[in-house]
Amino acid sequence: MNEGKLKAINKLKTARGQMDGIIRMLEDDRYCVDISTQILSVIGLLKKANIDILNSHLRSCVASAILEGEEQGQEKIDEIINIIDKYIK
Amino acid sequence: MNEGKLKAINKLKTARGQMDGIIRMLEDDRYCVDISTQILSVIGLLKKANIDILNSHLRSCVASAILEGEEQGQEKIDEIINIIDKYIK
Amino acid sequence: MNEGKLKAINKLKTARGQMDGIIRMLEDDRYCVDISTQILSVIGLLKKANIDILNSHLRSCVASAILEGEEQGQEKIDEIINIIDKYIK
Amino acid sequence: MNEGKLKAINKLKTARGQMDGIIRMLEDDRYCVDISTQILSVIGLLKKANIDILNSHLRSCVASAILEGEEQGQEKIDEIINIIDKYIK
Repeated sequence: MNEGKLKAINKLKTARGQMDGIIRMLEDDRYCVDISTQILSVIGLLKKANIDILNSHLRSCVASAILEGEEQGQEKIDEIINIIDKYIK
Repeated sequence: MNEGKLKAINKLKTARGQMDGIIRMLEDDRYCVDISTQILSVIGLLKKANIDILNSHLRSCVASAILEGEEQGQEKIDEIINIIDKYIK
Repeated sequence: MNEGKLKAINKLKTARGQMDGIIRMLEDDRYCVDISTQILSVIGLLKKANIDILNSHLRSCVASAILEGEEQGQEKIDEIINIIDKYIK
Repeated sequence: MNEGKLKAINKLKTARGQMDGIIRMLEDDRYCVDISTQILSVIGLLKKANIDILNSHLRSCVASAILEGEEQGQEKIDEIINIIDKYIK
């Protein structure tokens, strides 16, 4: 497992713990704005985990494909632009 | 518990299940772009849960505060604008 | 014109000026990352202009509708939740 | 000028025209939700222009840097990850 995936797995485990907390907040009928704030915090953590993964992906898979040949490089660039587009949109 | 919170709790439980799946994908060293796509799906679900909560909050707390008086209304509107701003930014 | 619209108009005029600058940067074939950074700055300004508008809208139209009656209030809340959803998504 | 920049310049010129329209809508004191919807449309166009630029940047500058050597590649990847992070956040 590469370094980006290791970082991502730690963030995702933290995020899962936060989600358990949010579900408890909902079950305890806590204040809406506090729940909304906690959901935003989990989303922020998931976005950071995604950046770790994309960073590793560029450094490993995409860079290797570019070194293999133009066609292989184009294919991997198309793929990563497609996922970045979905995140930004 | 209001209807929005009930809807949100179901979405959050689904999202938690998806997170368990993503953590397993990372542990199995699955392909980065597939993991990134799954993270995006969880983020989408969390955003929808948040909309359920904000919707209920507007219909109940904010509407009640507006009916109570101008000052109470302003306070709740400030609070919800503040959280919407953080989500949009 | 309400206060939120006045604030928004100033931000939009600044954003339009920035857009002229970005188009010149592109015509001068400037560095991609610098152009991307400038586009992000305009997007940030447009989001702030939108918050000004939604803030005024909640304080004026939505609050008035809630004071008019339950049905009128629900209609305006549906409408604003729909636009917030599109921004957050 | 590369193809991505040409595409981006067309989108930015359209967006500038839309911004002129939104400023007129504000000056005419048009309905808030309609203005907010138009702002969202401009933001969408700016995000698409940015994707055009990042796409070209990956295909030209980043790919060339990776072919030049590991250090040059890392530097360009750091730079593009940094800007993607700001857009996603």
